[in-house]
Amino acid sequence: MLVYRRKLRIEWGDCDPAGIVYFPRYFQHFDTGTVALFEKATGLKKIDMADKFEMVGIPMVNIRARFIIPSRYGDDVEIESQITEFHRSSFEVRHQLFRGKELAVECFETRVWTVRDEASAGGLKSAEVPERVREAFGGKEKKTAARSAKKKS
Amino acid sequence: MLVYRRKLRIEWGDCDPAGIVYFPRYFQHFDTGTVALFEKATGLKKIDMADKFEMVGIPMVNIRARFIIPSRYGDDVEIESQITEFHRSSFEVRHQLFRGKELAVECFETRVWTVRDEASAGGLKSAEVPERVREAFGGKEKKTAARSAKKKS
Amino acid sequence: MLVYRRKLRIEWGDCDPAGIVYFPRYFQHFDTGTVALFEKATGLKKIDMADKFEMVGIPMVNIRARFIIPSRYGDDVEIESQITEFHRSSFEVRHQLFRGKELAVECFETRVWTVRDEASAGGLKSAEVPERVREAFGGKEKKTAARSAKKKS
Amino acid sequence: MLVYRRKLRIEWGDCDPAGIVYFPRYFQHFDTGTVALFEKATGLKKIDMADKFEMVGIPMVNIRARFIIPSRYGDDVEIESQITEFHRSSFEVRHQLFRGKELAVECFETRVWTVRDEASAGGLKSAEVPERVREAFGGKEKKTAARSAKKKS
Repeated sequence: MLVYRRKLRIEWGDCDPAGIVYFPRYFQHFDTGTVALFEKATGLKKIDMADKFEMVGIPMVNIRARFIIPSRYGDDVEIESQITEFHRSSFEVRHQLFRGKELAVECFETRVWTVRDEASAGGLKSAEVPERVREAFGGKEKKTAARSAKKKS
Repeated sequence: MLVYRRKLRIEWGDCDPAGIVYFPRYFQHFDTGTVALFEKATGLKKIDMADKFEMVGIPMVNIRARFIIPSRYGDDVEIESQITEFHRSSFEVRHQLFRGKELAVECFETRVWTVRDEASAGGLKSAEVPERVREAFGGKEKKTAARSAKKKS
Repeated sequence: MLVYRRKLRIEWGDCDPAGIVYFPRYFQHFDTGTVALFEKATGLKKIDMADKFEMVGIPMVNIRARFIIPSRYGDDVEIESQITEFHRSSFEVRHQLFRGKELAVECFETRVWTVRDEASAGGLKSAEVPERVREAFGGKEKKTAARSAKKKS
Repeated sequence: MLVYRRKLRIEWGDCDPAGIVYFPRYFQHFDTGTVALFEKATGLKKIDMADKFEMVGIPMVNIRARFIIPSRYGDDVEIESQITEFHRSSFEVRHQLFRGKELAVECFETRVWTVRDEASAGGLKSAEVPERVREAFGGKEKKTAARSAKKKS
């Protein structure tokens, strides 16, 4: 599947009195990675996906992260983001933050494709990830490839 | 073990364009809960623990969270924080965020007691959680004291 | 005019590698003060004001702040917020953050009452502050009452 | 004087329930601009300036900002940062955020060069901006140029 890579300078404002990244800031950077990944795949900004698909957001339902090596302000790191699996209305994202070649932070997200729903309590409900979005990540191709492979065998 | 409870108003600045809490903000609130829990147990602010024990911080090594019900700005919620286990130099914290009686978010942290170490690369190293801190959460000594009190009576 | 006072603990996550509050965090606390001030005056949460008055927000157009004394994590401070003047569609807010009796930070905001406007570019436009909101802060009516009281004496 | 320009994508996490940038986030981006400006001038990261000059930070003493045009998530903007004046131990920074050619936000900062001081209450004190830093922004060159110009006339 598609991978989005982004270089990032750790900033003063990312860090805490111990001089290292205050962990909630990592999640904001990872969130930016997820959004950029969708833009790379679909060619649409999140705000345009919202318009086109009447989507409100892709809120988190589950997250796990391991913090292996701390980073300090001034450090240059790289984040690799990719979707590892699509379910019906949810999907799995993995982010890996590298310092040089070393894996420093790893994060696994489960998110839900969410649309406006005036009928429900919070005004939001989950919905099927649009086929066009799913395919933009290489879904269709893969299936086609799998099917071809089957035919060949 | 000791529990720390805190009422919290979800603020405009906690929320995203979908009108619900932007998930990294939850972690900042949980972090505040962990710090408050230590203060409740030891009677020491984090900054005074830093002075007293030459501790630099209690950075995260592992985190997991489930987001069950979204919250909107203006919502009043309650966070319950407690340490569920002490290891040698690390410990487990659980946070539960309730909307009324409903569990809305649950978070599990593994953190490490960290001290200054000029010798090491990042200037930081893990260290044994001080006996006094561990005991403040209801460890051995308190029980002993209770038992002695019982014997005396 | 009405004053809103709030005690605040400076948290680890508010602070930077110098161990003092990272200045943008002050503004988030002041914003919370402005919202709380409106709730105290009108009895309505911001989200309910949004519903009732078809208001989208009260964005900032001008801000000034002086940082007089730094605060460190663990410090207990108090914020006093009040509206100093209403204009037609905008208003002035003053926040003062005290450490004990000392003024540590002072901030002056000009904000605009903003409503949805599908016709305009950004989908937003300024609008007159509703009479009911203005009066809730002790505007005309209250003064009249005061004047009547004077006459009677 | 030296100018630092940086393109910036407005992210989902920068924005509030009105869908526009939550104003304290602008200040974090401007702070990043100030730090980058020093690095461009001196060739030193902030963390290396801290080491080299025993500097702790460049905290804000005064800030003013005008918010002229709101920005929404997905917007691409550009920030121009420059020091407009050096005083003895403080200096003035101006940031301008442009959407296309339009000035959207303008911010004026006064900051102080701050060093560790164990004797003082907060452990911090202001100090003269090191000559080498000042010159890196074109101080020396400019003086030299002025002197040459004088000779020529």
